[in-house]
Amino acid sequence: MFHVGLIGLGRIGKLHAENLVKEFPQANLAVVADPFLNDDMRAWAQSLGIKNLTAHPDEVFRHPQVEAVLICSPTPTHEALIIEAAQAGKHVFCEKPIGSDIAQIERALEEVEKRGVKLQVGFVRRFDHNHRKVRESVKEGKIGKPYLVKITSRDPQPPSLEYLKASGGIFFDMTIHDFDMARYLSGSEVEEVFACGTVLVDEAVAGLHDFDTAVVTLRFTNGMIGIIDNCRQAVYGYDQRTEVHGSQGCIWVENDRPNTSLLLTRNGTVREPFLWFFLERYKQAFIDELKAFFHALGENTQPPVDGVDGLKAVLIAQAASRSAREGRIVKVGER
Amino acid sequence: MFHVGLIGLGRIGKLHAENLVKEFPQANLAVVADPFLNDDMRAWAQSLGIKNLTAHPDEVFRHPQVEAVLICSPTPTHEALIIEAAQAGKHVFCEKPIGSDIAQIERALEEVEKRGVKLQVGFVRRFDHNHRKVRESVKEGKIGKPYLVKITSRDPQPPSLEYLKASGGIFFDMTIHDFDMARYLSGSEVEEVFACGTVLVDEAVAGLHDFDTAVVTLRFTNGMIGIIDNCRQAVYGYDQRTEVHGSQGCIWVENDRPNTSLLLTRNGTVREPFLWFFLERYKQAFIDELKAFFHALGENTQPPVDGVDGLKAVLIAQAASRSAREGRIVKVGER
Amino acid sequence: MFHVGLIGLGRIGKLHAENLVKEFPQANLAVVADPFLNDDMRAWAQSLGIKNLTAHPDEVFRHPQVEAVLICSPTPTHEALIIEAAQAGKHVFCEKPIGSDIAQIERALEEVEKRGVKLQVGFVRRFDHNHRKVRESVKEGKIGKPYLVKITSRDPQPPSLEYLKASGGIFFDMTIHDFDMARYLSGSEVEEVFACGTVLVDEAVAGLHDFDTAVVTLRFTNGMIGIIDNCRQAVYGYDQRTEVHGSQGCIWVENDRPNTSLLLTRNGTVREPFLWFFLERYKQAFIDELKAFFHALGENTQPPVDGVDGLKAVLIAQAASRSAREGRIVKVGER
Amino acid sequence: MFHVGLIGLGRIGKLHAENLVKEFPQANLAVVADPFLNDDMRAWAQSLGIKNLTAHPDEVFRHPQVEAVLICSPTPTHEALIIEAAQAGKHVFCEKPIGSDIAQIERALEEVEKRGVKLQVGFVRRFDHNHRKVRESVKEGKIGKPYLVKITSRDPQPPSLEYLKASGGIFFDMTIHDFDMARYLSGSEVEEVFACGTVLVDEAVAGLHDFDTAVVTLRFTNGMIGIIDNCRQAVYGYDQRTEVHGSQGCIWVENDRPNTSLLLTRNGTVREPFLWFFLERYKQAFIDELKAFFHALGENTQPPVDGVDGLKAVLIAQAASRSAREGRIVKVGER
Repeated sequence: MFHVGLIGLGRIGKLHAENLVKEFPQANLAVVADPFLNDDMRAWAQSLGIKNLTAHPDEVFRHPQVEAVLICSPTPTHEALIIEAAQAGKHVFCEKPIGSDIAQIERALEEVEKRGVKLQVGFVRRFDHNHRKVRESVKEGKIGKPYLVKITSRDPQPPSLEYLKASGGIFFDMTIHDFDMARYLSGSEVEEVFACGTVLVDEAVAGLHDFDTAVVTLRFTNGMIGIIDNCRQAVYGYDQRTEVHGSQGCIWVENDRPNTSLLLTRNGTVREPFLWFFLERYKQAFIDELKAFFHALGENTQPPVDGVDGLKAVLIAQAASRSAREGRIVKVGER
Repeated sequence: MFHVGLIGLGRIGKLHAENLVKEFPQANLAVVADPFLNDDMRAWAQSLGIKNLTAHPDEVFRHPQVEAVLICSPTPTHEALIIEAAQAGKHVFCEKPIGSDIAQIERALEEVEKRGVKLQVGFVRRFDHNHRKVRESVKEGKIGKPYLVKITSRDPQPPSLEYLKASGGIFFDMTIHDFDMARYLSGSEVEEVFACGTVLVDEAVAGLHDFDTAVVTLRFTNGMIGIIDNCRQAVYGYDQRTEVHGSQGCIWVENDRPNTSLLLTRNGTVREPFLWFFLERYKQAFIDELKAFFHALGENTQPPVDGVDGLKAVLIAQAASRSAREGRIVKVGER
Repeated sequence: MFHVGLIGLGRIGKLHAENLVKEFPQANLAVVADPFLNDDMRAWAQSLGIKNLTAHPDEVFRHPQVEAVLICSPTPTHEALIIEAAQAGKHVFCEKPIGSDIAQIERALEEVEKRGVKLQVGFVRRFDHNHRKVRESVKEGKIGKPYLVKITSRDPQPPSLEYLKASGGIFFDMTIHDFDMARYLSGSEVEEVFACGTVLVDEAVAGLHDFDTAVVTLRFTNGMIGIIDNCRQAVYGYDQRTEVHGSQGCIWVENDRPNTSLLLTRNGTVREPFLWFFLERYKQAFIDELKAFFHALGENTQPPVDGVDGLKAVLIAQAASRSAREGRIVKVGER
Repeated sequence: MFHVGLIGLGRIGKLHAENLVKEFPQANLAVVADPFLNDDMRAWAQSLGIKNLTAHPDEVFRHPQVEAVLICSPTPTHEALIIEAAQAGKHVFCEKPIGSDIAQIERALEEVEKRGVKLQVGFVRRFDHNHRKVRESVKEGKIGKPYLVKITSRDPQPPSLEYLKASGGIFFDMTIHDFDMARYLSGSEVEEVFACGTVLVDEAVAGLHDFDTAVVTLRFTNGMIGIIDNCRQAVYGYDQRTEVHGSQGCIWVENDRPNTSLLLTRNGTVREPFLWFFLERYKQAFIDELKAFFHALGENTQPPVDGVDGLKAVLIAQAASRSAREGRIVKVGER
């Protein structure tokens, strides 16, 4: 039996907790912490049979049996919690992004290194059956030398303004996944970024100095070019497409749908809408990323998405954010 | 310049005439005959620049320059007109079915043979880009040894009862194309037929002792089994699918649409309806079958769909018709 | 906690046992019986944490806590085991087909009725996301009045001759699923059957007086026509398509694939092969049918596929078998 | 009868000439000019029945019956030929791009205006059945307020270096079509351009100070963002996709294929490769753009793609070219 702690009971924390309870009989969710513990959380925990609930994250780190901690708290707390976990000798699974302050992230990675604990970052899309197939095809040389990587990522509906205020901006909150995808699919590093952002969905977003629609061009060290398009609103459902074009061909993946039906009527042929949002689309991937994490712990190997991956995505997001604000090309890691 | 005559100015006769004028600059539509010649036909002919219009088919056969005749008149006249054409030494392109009376058809084929003229039957689907691809794949062994052939053929809307009365019944009028497809796609001959017909679209069809929905099972000499499903009504458009399943794989073709668009909305993904009916779907195939006919004449080779093909489809239709009426398996050619 | 027993540790018995252990924390697999209990089964049971393993099915029926029994033994034992279970007051989930002898099945259904236990038959395809969508669309009137139901069911590879010998023949073993689908999708009863069988995949099958390729035409009481095509071999993977055509449109479902990738090369666009076989394709459906069974027990409602459904599919299979052997239309229930 | 002249017998000039002869019986190709007239051209002309062939473009302008001239000569000659045509009172159909020198283009447009002749530019993709459907859907409000326009345009194989030297660079030769598409699909004007070019297909292209792979981001006056990706090599065939995403949905078009076949084997499902290149893909569109031109002349209306459209695409290409070379955002029309 493997003992695990979890910090942060927002949407994603609850999702991981539920997966742990239902899908990992070999794991024991020994303790769950949330500083803003409330009755809803208590009822939810009870329904899952989680007994040890606390408002003090410290208790997770002090728990003698806990070997690994899942950090699902708000982004600004990530670096400090990673450091605490590492110092307590606990392995860490940290939700994306790994943090918001480059220096702090570097400090956390040093601590992880020094304490010899493992760290995996929650870039769940790497575990999706579709995107993984794109990566494998590129890696196996099925499209020859890669030229272009294209990523479309659009949410079905915008989050609340409340959420957006604390999100760090579209590049840190939403595109961060695509920056990781770009590195994963290309197998190369991003050197330069040009980002173009605008507000088309909800004018209130402009008041937050954020964007709700964005297009990002990336230049990679291996010469490839990348393109990302994001929108906070796609009424037809979560739109998640990736594509790599190369010298011998092209590989792309389409969206998943709940079934394969075609309804043919006078007005055309209707297929089902896409799976609605990330909970539906990446349902299995959320389980598989934990499997990979536990596998790395069990086999004492490097987790498939580590702290450096977490840091690099943040560096690209930082460059994109500057590029969009200043209207110029920005080098990744520019000081 | 190649001189051609045409008999019968119904929908299909007009179509062939228009193709001749527009698509075959090397052919001259020298004379067109219809016993029920009227002002509409005259106006239509004038708009196409057709000068020689007559109510007397004989004039076509007597025309000294005409080398080939397109027979587009009602089915019951086919055999006699083929005989007349052959006796006049004219090559013949005859619309499907080649006739309705087996003995008469055999008589016509003998005359064609004796006079050394060429005869092509208008099984236009053999010239369709989709079905042809299925045939080629089977022939090239891409699916290994063929096991099953499946044909779906549904019209967008039923013809008038007037038309149906003279049609010879669904098996002679509609399924006849599928019987030819079955032979073409399988590369084998039909031995036994079991047909199941019913009236579901329009009760009036029952009064004609005809069916509007039918399913036919075929047994081939090479051991394959065939299945055809027909319906006089498919509100979503002309449904024309063929499939051959074999030991190494399966090949099938989907329907054509006017464009490749996907419209994604809250309610699903909408593709365009199928091309509406045979004029749209087989537009190019109607041109290509005439090309093949003229090519056979020019090169003095056998036309790709000949009189025997025409006869065999009628024999299968006859067996299907008996099978459906008598509720039993019928051997093709049963006396 | 809900206590369950299971009889028969073949492929399907093991599958249900694994689902019970992994997916139903509220159920306790209290006892498992197989008369041919061997070391492999014991090792398998141990790996799943199943403690109570016996060679005596009686022990299942005598188990005081067991409320429901899953019958996964060979078909010829089904009726007797259902009767025993009913007499012991246990609810029954019985794999398809419900039996092979009509009189015996009727006897079993009477016993079930008399003892007031619930009986569900394992027609797993009713729980598939695709076929279910077809049924719902028909039921909701989306295609108007239904005319035709079409079912394609082809296995990726034939089972062993050993298996085939005991299978009862293709209609009882394989098409039985399609007979249930035909009733389910049409919402109507089958009146008449015409079946055409042949041996094309493996000649040895002829020696068993069985078929490996078959086409069945069905006539329904509501006037619809049904068509089923089966083949024991489809090298491209498990081919499971259903379609209903009606007065206002058509609904059909395509096969599932492991991902949505398109690999575009000089030679064409390649999509992934279909999911390989029923374990992959109906993975979730096997879980969902047990959910439905437990739900019916918990809520004291009728299971969604009951004994009469089990009997009716066998009656159609019997008619199909006779039809194929005697070369004639056979009425369902013909004595 | 409508009399037409044509200048320039390269690939595109021959294509238009053949379409004129075969598809427009109402038009007479009265005179064809090419300064580099050779025996191949003479043989080609003879095979088409074109009698009047000259090495002197002047003869086209002086031809008394000619009402319209098709300019298919190299780009650097366009402006001067338009001016000559206008001064001679001939209507003009000019291949894309309308020219390479902004001042000269403006001069040509003034002359066209002054002389009251009509001018259409050969942006053939506006007449494609797929892209047109995207435009219509946007215009009809089917996707609500448009947010993003995406265009993928990749050639199957790079042209010769010889051709590239005279092409004006990828943005003027290849992307020019996409710039027009961007305006057409969005219904808005481009304000700012950011282009990122690289050489990945053939290093020799770098020696020409050109690119063979490029990504362009566009900002429109209506707030939309556009993305174009280009590559001179797509071994899987001509890749022509367009997409517009908006507040109520998204519309996109896939590529055309020669048929709808699916070949299913052990290795996956294979669809036919895309139509190979622009001659195949835009075959009908080349005819339809001439239809539209003749229609505008006949009805005395404005041609659907006029000189201003031609100029605007060149202005965007100029901005893109600067942006890619100087690594900065460039305003369209920047002096």
